[in-house]
Amino acid sequence: MTVHPAHTRVYKRGEHSNIEVPYTRVALTNGETFDRYCTEGPGSDPQVGLPPFRVGWIEDRGDTETYDGRATQLVDNGRAAIRSGAARGEWQGEKREPRRSTGGAVTQMAYARAGIVTPEMEYVALRESCDVELVRSEVAAGRAIIPANVNHPESEPMIIGRRFLVKINANIGNSAVTSSIEEEVDKLTHAITWGADTVMDLSTGDDIHTTREWIIRNSPVPIGTVPIYQALEKVNGEADRLTWEIFRDTVIEQCEQGVDYMTIHAGVLLRYVPMTARRVTGIVSRGGSIMAGWCLAHHEENFLYTHYDELCEIFAQYDVSFSLGDGLRPGSTADADDEAQLSELRTLAELTARAWEHDVQVMVEGPGHVPLHLVEENVRLQQEWCHGAPFYTLGPLATDIAPGYDHITSAIGAATIAMHGTAMLCYVTPKEHLGLPNRDDVKTGVITYKLAAHAADIAKGHPGARDWDDALSKARFEFRWRDQFALSLDPVTAEEFHDETLPADNAKTAHFCSMCGPKFCSMRISQDVRDRFGADLTPEDAALGMKEKSAEFLELGGTVYVEEDVPDRL
Amino acid sequence: MTVHPAHTRVYKRGEHSNIEVPYTRVALTNGETFDRYCTEGPGSDPQVGLPPFRVGWIEDRGDTETYDGRATQLVDNGRAAIRSGAARGEWQGEKREPRRSTGGAVTQMAYARAGIVTPEMEYVALRESCDVELVRSEVAAGRAIIPANVNHPESEPMIIGRRFLVKINANIGNSAVTSSIEEEVDKLTHAITWGADTVMDLSTGDDIHTTREWIIRNSPVPIGTVPIYQALEKVNGEADRLTWEIFRDTVIEQCEQGVDYMTIHAGVLLRYVPMTARRVTGIVSRGGSIMAGWCLAHHEENFLYTHYDELCEIFAQYDVSFSLGDGLRPGSTADADDEAQLSELRTLAELTARAWEHDVQVMVEGPGHVPLHLVEENVRLQQEWCHGAPFYTLGPLATDIAPGYDHITSAIGAATIAMHGTAMLCYVTPKEHLGLPNRDDVKTGVITYKLAAHAADIAKGHPGARDWDDALSKARFEFRWRDQFALSLDPVTAEEFHDETLPADNAKTAHFCSMCGPKFCSMRISQDVRDRFGADLTPEDAALGMKEKSAEFLELGGTVYVEEDVPDRL
Repeated sequence: MTVHPAHTRVYKRGEHSNIEVPYTRVALTNGETFDRYCTEGPGSDPQVGLPPFRVGWIEDRGDTETYDGRATQLVDNGRAAIRSGAARGEWQGEKREPRRSTGGAVTQMAYARAGIVTPEMEYVALRESCDVELVRSEVAAGRAIIPANVNHPESEPMIIGRRFLVKINANIGNSAVTSSIEEEVDKLTHAITWGADTVMDLSTGDDIHTTREWIIRNSPVPIGTVPIYQALEKVNGEADRLTWEIFRDTVIEQCEQGVDYMTIHAGVLLRYVPMTARRVTGIVSRGGSIMAGWCLAHHEENFLYTHYDELCEIFAQYDVSFSLGDGLRPGSTADADDEAQLSELRTLAELTARAWEHDVQVMVEGPGHVPLHLVEENVRLQQEWCHGAPFYTLGPLATDIAPGYDHITSAIGAATIAMHGTAMLCYVTPKEHLGLPNRDDVKTGVITYKLAAHAADIAKGHPGARDWDDALSKARFEFRWRDQFALSLDPVTAEEFHDETLPADNAKTAHFCSMCGPKFCSMRISQDVRDRFGADLTPEDAALGMKEKSAEFLELGGTVYVEEDVPDRL
Repeated sequence: MTVHPAHTRVYKRGEHSNIEVPYTRVALTNGETFDRYCTEGPGSDPQVGLPPFRVGWIEDRGDTETYDGRATQLVDNGRAAIRSGAARGEWQGEKREPRRSTGGAVTQMAYARAGIVTPEMEYVALRESCDVELVRSEVAAGRAIIPANVNHPESEPMIIGRRFLVKINANIGNSAVTSSIEEEVDKLTHAITWGADTVMDLSTGDDIHTTREWIIRNSPVPIGTVPIYQALEKVNGEADRLTWEIFRDTVIEQCEQGVDYMTIHAGVLLRYVPMTARRVTGIVSRGGSIMAGWCLAHHEENFLYTHYDELCEIFAQYDVSFSLGDGLRPGSTADADDEAQLSELRTLAELTARAWEHDVQVMVEGPGHVPLHLVEENVRLQQEWCHGAPFYTLGPLATDIAPGYDHITSAIGAATIAMHGTAMLCYVTPKEHLGLPNRDDVKTGVITYKLAAHAADIAKGHPGARDWDDALSKARFEFRWRDQFALSLDPVTAEEFHDETLPADNAKTAHFCSMCGPKFCSMRISQDVRDRFGADLTPEDAALGMKEKSAEFLELGGTVYVEEDVPDRL
């Protein structure tokens, strides 16, 4: 599905014959074209899934093998499956044997450190229009990750790192109180159509395993999960009953399915838990509170921390990336940057270094709720302490007073934190704090975060980032309404809004809009200015042409404009 | 109209018996209350208008007199009135004789400079919960303004300055292609109900004079206009035919009606016009392009600049404040901070100083479209060059690629520019660049800008600003759903969104939400943490209670938390 008739799919081809990076080409009415980064993938029949186009790349490396995977159990689909004795909506498409390393780490980081340029890296370089060596060196240094589980060969490689385009993640997933597999797959498709770079399946309800299978098999973007959610379902929602063995088994289940990155709340240490007692909003991270609850119940250290190296060994076999969860992130502006948050961040820094010893890719999760004046510091501390590992933040919300508008309160914090170096932004929908996002909320969240991420790309001076703005502004100035719509992040809404006041078809070619009306138009007057002075005429020349008027200016007390008064960089 | 059953109107009383500052009191289910700044006014029958409660204050000063005002002419209501020979919807309420100075300046600035504390200043001090001397001294210094035309005695005094709460303006007004008087009055009421601090009537269509009369008589907030719009209507939309005399007459017409501040594009100088020729989006300010068009047509200097001192004399007689228009503001991120914009800003600085010589209050308008990394500089230059006069910006939009979402692209820039010292933010609605805002767009724009302004108040560390966030977050943490709604900027939407997933009435008292479901809840677990450790227990004490575990921590490679590692201010 393309969202606008002027959009077509084009491909950039690399050296590897089978590297084809999809772009969305926008055909403009003036004959020009504009290419947009595309996350939509080739499209799939949900029943069949996407072609596993990366299999050849993975096999060619000769360092993995397929094996008899872990047998699916009823409990994998939660309590409903156990009650009814069968999982609903079993995946009907091709079932592939899972693949894992024959020995060493098969991660993009391991290859990058060995100086190997993988097809995934070439793909990413084409996609970001940058030098492949930049991709390899950033991944080798841990400053960027390419989440690409060997069991998710349908995924189109993408990179998360501060030197690259700011990415956004969309959360989907059912809960104990809502929604079906079809709905979730539809949300996935909707999210990538509008530009989500990765999608997290945060299902906590029934059919978790099966829902995830449908999502991964149909996803051209990396899929992330929070395995503790499924593990909790396996013990009937009772945190106390969680064990490392149950968690480990759940992680392997998800590695074999092809989850590309997993949120692991290994930084929630027993001794940090009391630090949250005096907070305004305590612990608001679900995973964080699960582990805090477990630590308190057993009065033992977080098993994700004590078994962390085993986790690294597992992730290295599948190239699953860590998303180190900030289980103690602030849930209100009052709690921002407190002892609990920063203590956990120091532990996440230690865990980052330990994962890198295993060549496992890592990103670090961040808040949450942070007042604007503390946003920059949050990135600075994370980047310093975590050795430059990519920062992945949820918003942050710049104020707590606007439930129903938290996509906006958080977009303010998100654009700012991304400008200062956050690599990926987890979207927030209008339903945050109030309910589960529906299809429309997913779109609103994605569009809002795409514009926040792009605002950051511009502010960072990312090469070519502003070309998109310039193309749209030029179309706007030249009254190319159809081009303005086609270039919009959301062409559908832009055209609908325009047509609300001026539905007539000719209004789309009219040299005016509903703000000023036909008789007068500011854009038209400045067109006249351009016609009179020409776009090439320098202000200096034009000023000369007005020399005869200069005396008059002075009489009238006009101070003559002095070049030197203006800052050099202008 | 109050927007929520838990909201009631309360009044803070000052020394003057008749100073009563309205607040919205939110009654919480735990017996506490929270008072919110209120812009809604006492409410009025549109046919009758609001009581002119400031008349006594104005008369007591003994420096103004009523007089036979300028006779209304058909042309004041535009071409339709001329065609039909009568204006539509004439104001039916009481018609008061206009009032003006008997001699000297009757501006709040003149009083402040003379060391006089006016009831308006007392009102503002109560409203801002600050010392009245701060109000007087900031107004005297020109760093803040209290827009309060002596002919708008219905208005509740408010202040615009960086030392005070960040304010927001909502634009309404009909255009050549849309809407009626009733609609515009309804938009006014809607805007102030949701929190607009001032409203600008930017009508450019028919019945301009009459529409404005209805708006002013019913407005408890200051009303701003762009008089050149009406002047242009008087010359059939032909900028070339504008004259100082027509403009002057229009300004007096509006001074007598009670307009509190007027946007004057006196900084668009003839020699700056060519500087826009090479821009991506030329001149996008309507007023700016009108004056640019006039300057080019006549090859003469802008008559607003050449007659500026006369304008100051007129404004001083009614206490009308200047909003110095940025007619050359950038209309795209590409044009931000260019020679045209900064040249005009230098002239606005000169005009600010000249207005102050007449004791006339001034604020300076700003962009527009500005990439995030240039936002802070825009405030810094304006504050330095314009001697600290209040900055009043339109957004700015942080990117151009999201028409239909420009309330968001601009809220990002607005929160940031306000954090750095902008005093008032002009809202942008979702219809920006596409059409005229309807009633719903006005609400969305106002709520979006209220949250942006509040985010800035928090970031500035404005006294008490975060209390609102803390009250709402506390309600959220304690599952006081009804309180969370009542405290929201938009209680209606917050409750609707919640009910979409959990409509049952008991869900509003339930200790869970639709995100985690009833079986497990992160908030509940952190409640357990608090119950176990107590909100008063220090982390240090709690750590002691865990001493027996510390050996284990070390065995497990847990690094003991070192206080010194954390920045002092934590």
